Amino acid sequence: MTITEPLTVTARREIAGSWLAGFEAAVRAGDAAAAAGMFLGGGYWRDILALTWDLRTFAGRDAIGAGLARWLPARTPAGFWLEDTAPEMFERRSQGWTIEAFFTFETGIARCRGHVRLLTDPQAGEWKAWTLLTAMEDLKGHEEKAGAQRRASSSPHGVLPNDTGARSEAGPEDEPEVLVIGAGQAGLTVAARLGQLDVPALVIEREARVGDNWRHRYASLVLHNQVWANHLPYLKFPSSWPAYLGKDELADWLEAYAGVMGLNVWTSAELTAARYDPRAGRWSVSVRRGDGSVAALRPRHVVLATGVFGIPHRLELPGAAEFTGRLLHATEYAGGTPAPGVRALVVGSGSSAHDVAQDLHESGAQVTMLQRSSTCVVSLEPGAARAYSIYREDGAPTEDCDLVNNSFPLPLLAELHKDMTDRIAQLDDALLRGLRSAGFALDFGPDGSGFLMKYHRTGGGYYINVGCSDLIVAGQIKVRQGAEIARLSGRTVHLTDGTRLDADLIVVATGYQNMSESVRALFGDEVAARVGPVWGLDAEGEVRAMWRRTGQPGLWIMGGSLQQCRPYSKYLALQIKGCQEGLITPATAPQAPRAPGTPGGPS
Amino acid sequence: MTITEPLTVTARREIAGSWLAGFEAAVRAGDAAAAAGMFLGGGYWRDILALTWDLRTFAGRDAIGAGLARWLPARTPAGFWLEDTAPEMFERRSQGWTIEAFFTFETGIARCRGHVRLLTDPQAGEWKAWTLLTAMEDLKGHEEKAGAQRRASSSPHGVLPNDTGARSEAGPEDEPEVLVIGAGQAGLTVAARLGQLDVPALVIEREARVGDNWRHRYASLVLHNQVWANHLPYLKFPSSWPAYLGKDELADWLEAYAGVMGLNVWTSAELTAARYDPRAGRWSVSVRRGDGSVAALRPRHVVLATGVFGIPHRLELPGAAEFTGRLLHATEYAGGTPAPGVRALVVGSGSSAHDVAQDLHESGAQVTMLQRSSTCVVSLEPGAARAYSIYREDGAPTEDCDLVNNSFPLPLLAELHKDMTDRIAQLDDALLRGLRSAGFALDFGPDGSGFLMKYHRTGGGYYINVGCSDLIVAGQIKVRQGAEIARLSGRTVHLTDGTRLDADLIVVATGYQNMSESVRALFGDEVAARVGPVWGLDAEGEVRAMWRRTGQPGLWIMGGSLQQCRPYSKYLALQIKGCQEGLITPATAPQAPRAPGTPGGPS
Repeated sequence: MTITEPLTVTARREIAGSWLAGFEAAVRAGDAAAAAGMFLGGGYWRDILALTWDLRTFAGRDAIGAGLARWLPARTPAGFWLEDTAPEMFERRSQGWTIEAFFTFETGIARCRGHVRLLTDPQAGEWKAWTLLTAMEDLKGHEEKAGAQRRASSSPHGVLPNDTGARSEAGPEDEPEVLVIGAGQAGLTVAARLGQLDVPALVIEREARVGDNWRHRYASLVLHNQVWANHLPYLKFPSSWPAYLGKDELADWLEAYAGVMGLNVWTSAELTAARYDPRAGRWSVSVRRGDGSVAALRPRHVVLATGVFGIPHRLELPGAAEFTGRLLHATEYAGGTPAPGVRALVVGSGSSAHDVAQDLHESGAQVTMLQRSSTCVVSLEPGAARAYSIYREDGAPTEDCDLVNNSFPLPLLAELHKDMTDRIAQLDDALLRGLRSAGFALDFGPDGSGFLMKYHRTGGGYYINVGCSDLIVAGQIKVRQGAEIARLSGRTVHLTDGTRLDADLIVVATGYQNMSESVRALFGDEVAARVGPVWGLDAEGEVRAMWRRTGQPGLWIMGGSLQQCRPYSKYLALQIKGCQEGLITPATAPQAPRAPGTPGGPS
Repeated sequence: MTITEPLTVTARREIAGSWLAGFEAAVRAGDAAAAAGMFLGGGYWRDILALTWDLRTFAGRDAIGAGLARWLPARTPAGFWLEDTAPEMFERRSQGWTIEAFFTFETGIARCRGHVRLLTDPQAGEWKAWTLLTAMEDLKGHEEKAGAQRRASSSPHGVLPNDTGARSEAGPEDEPEVLVIGAGQAGLTVAARLGQLDVPALVIEREARVGDNWRHRYASLVLHNQVWANHLPYLKFPSSWPAYLGKDELADWLEAYAGVMGLNVWTSAELTAARYDPRAGRWSVSVRRGDGSVAALRPRHVVLATGVFGIPHRLELPGAAEFTGRLLHATEYAGGTPAPGVRALVVGSGSSAHDVAQDLHESGAQVTMLQRSSTCVVSLEPGAARAYSIYREDGAPTEDCDLVNNSFPLPLLAELHKDMTDRIAQLDDALLRGLRSAGFALDFGPDGSGFLMKYHRTGGGYYINVGCSDLIVAGQIKVRQGAEIARLSGRTVHLTDGTRLDADLIVVATGYQNMSESVRALFGDEVAARVGPVWGLDAEGEVRAMWRRTGQPGLWIMGGSLQQCRPYSKYLALQIKGCQEGLITPATAPQAPRAPGTPGGPS
């Protein structure tokens, strides 16, 4: 059976409904093998908390069957219900037409949502699951009080008969159950989610104002995807704001968000000591506040939300002490106005390097970029926008888009992005040829899957063109390619290829250290060893140590783009609530951290 | 032809499309009589700027025909296009089934939207317009840069090829084209709208912080309709906020809104002088700022947005000087904690009187309400909520709801609300019987059209029960009915019915003076005479002097509930933009202010 055109809505609904009924029957019978048989041989099941209380991806019928066998007995999912009256169909180039549908179900403790993406099996001719996502939405009895479940009022007396009015007391502000370190998008979103779950949280921020982590960066910084992909939980950006937000707009928005959401934030506050007491299940932490006082807190959970821009990756530059110009890391570069004619060298070729180079050029400097290896470059539109195209101005609800987005396990996303990367490269042909002519080295990732997988795998090595590539193509920013700095002396930079150039200013934009170094700096070697590497993908294709239990009880890591923080803040908060309510035991990660390529079996 | 059940979607679309095509044909042929013939004999046409550059209601075929004949030649509306793929049908008790559809059209200068509500004509058996709304959406070339028309970025260099980046410069902050007096919801929404139209506006606010007009009121104040009816332009309230907002929530939101929208607001600033120069077409105004300095400004337009709570209506109480207790107007009552047992008398029986009485009771006072005449009382739910039921949590887009809401001319709304008021009274039967038993006098408006028409006609005389009525029913707040204060002496209040009572505290909650007194206080007798009465309805059923040109060139009055401010801020801003662009001439009102009942012919 080959589908060559979209089916009627009635037919789609019947096919999706029938698959779901079959899946539910197998699940209720406890027949994991039968349920796994409803997937394609190369199908995926991704679970977000619903069955596993973890973020897990199972690839292929064997792994799916084993995963279901492991968790079905404990969770007994039931009440599967197709949400869509009109499931969508999409034509996937290499796979054919899919039918995609949302559904709801529940377990003993939670209300959940799912998304299934069906394809016809070339062998059997039947519709089978290519991807299945199961995700926890609400813990029963602890539903978020938002949207259709809003409180009637905050009035202490209520305004309606039987209206109990104000939210339950969150306790004094200095006795938080959760301490969140960092008030960027990661810290604020998880605090907002915890507030909805009535878990008292305190956010500490070392800067003087919420948003300063963005506000203090270079002036030309804009987000690289559009506003409708970047809404924070519970509050959408104004419709009058531009599509691509600048760093000050985002900074001010974060500050307003903290106020509007009633978050408990201490600014100018830093963690100075932290020790976990496993018997008490609490941390003993010291926080130095802006007035010099030190607060001693005993939270059950600490959420590290200091971002990937934590500890700069500084190059050891031979002769740095003899360099008579200025030498900065990109994190110290706040933009500004060097004297016209200043000779600037930017070391690196990722997003920060490009932004700094463009900013320097616009300030009148003569800029050279030292590109040491190769870079993946895409246009902002139409290139990068393709990766976010499910989010649209007047498109589907943001939460639905998030579910669809998270329904693609990263290993599958890498496969799909090879094709997308080819197509984007065709659209960007003129730009890419211009860059090559200018001596700039391009790549599309080790497997040709492009910039988005570079983001997920390493967080860098790509640039979404917001103008700097045009300057390179036009020769207004020079490129030196394939060399490193061998030595500095006076105002001269000697390169490893034997050439040299003169520079009055060097900005090193070579990225940041793995977040495990932030863990080490705050919590010490032992905790860092328990947590292991952060970011990058584990053997299943899930992100390591992020948004899930780590090897250190009571320590969580929150972060990522605005688009990631929105859904994952909810999943992290649900896990903390689950710990608070005794629904997750033990509180540690279900297994040791998995290195890339190391098979991690079900626990 | 009698319709007894909803028609198919295809049939609805055909009927609505056919009506619209016929209307367009008549309009394009310039045949006003034929176009008017497509209305029911008792039909209405309401125009908001699209054809008349004014807010106008035409009742009956003669008035509609005359209005169309007057305005069609100048505007030549064209390009009518049915928006809905599935027009809705509703069963109206006394009229039968309607078909209701949105459409778009344009004039030479503007893009417009319309809404038509069709009924079958009992005589002809044809579908005719019961109501037609035509409303301006955007002036061509000056579209709001919001939603699908957002700017790409605010970056001065843009982020996309051909992206000009930042908005046009609005000029120095102290050279506004528009001065807005008052930073409540009225002033802020019109300033936000003007910002979208690139009209430089300055808002001055006498209080120290934006939102203080709400913040400084009594603690128990909550809005009397739900959050989804009250969204401000461009930015929805958070989904995590309660349905009925308290006064502090609203105050903080207004303050955040001013910041997020980038509005230019001077707090602690007061207008001290204003004179209009008709030759220059500008005002000369003096504004005293918080630091004591006085700014001299020359705006083209002044928008009075000080609210209906401008100048308290104070009773002359004989013997007030001999009263040894405290005597306050409700506007001075900020809540608080009188000593338990304090004897308090609240004079009046509107919303403020009830709220103050409830607040006093909760503070431990012995409270008596002096109800001088009668009051319309409805429950919050299900009663009052019925009047706002088109606005829903996950309902139609807010802008669509506003259009539907504004498609009912107030004279028709009064007719429809008689029936609704009857039904609400049945639902509220227990409450109303309890109130009568407690000696409280009820009414449902002079024509039985209930609380909402009282709001539109006089702004008062009703109470939406958020708890005080229950206290009256339970005897915890006493009522003295049908009397006035004859005389005060010591702690004794002598009533006109010959009885007396003792009071340590009297709070007079008898409302506020007509806004024309605010006009007089700020601009003098001559301007007040030109503007005439404010609020209340003119002969057509439009609100007097609000949101439209007044008799004083360059003077506008903005105000109303949050629900009204959202759409009418746009209409007022469009008129100011029209003046700025030379599209409205002369800048004065098209006719003298019309007194209620005075026929106002087309101008």
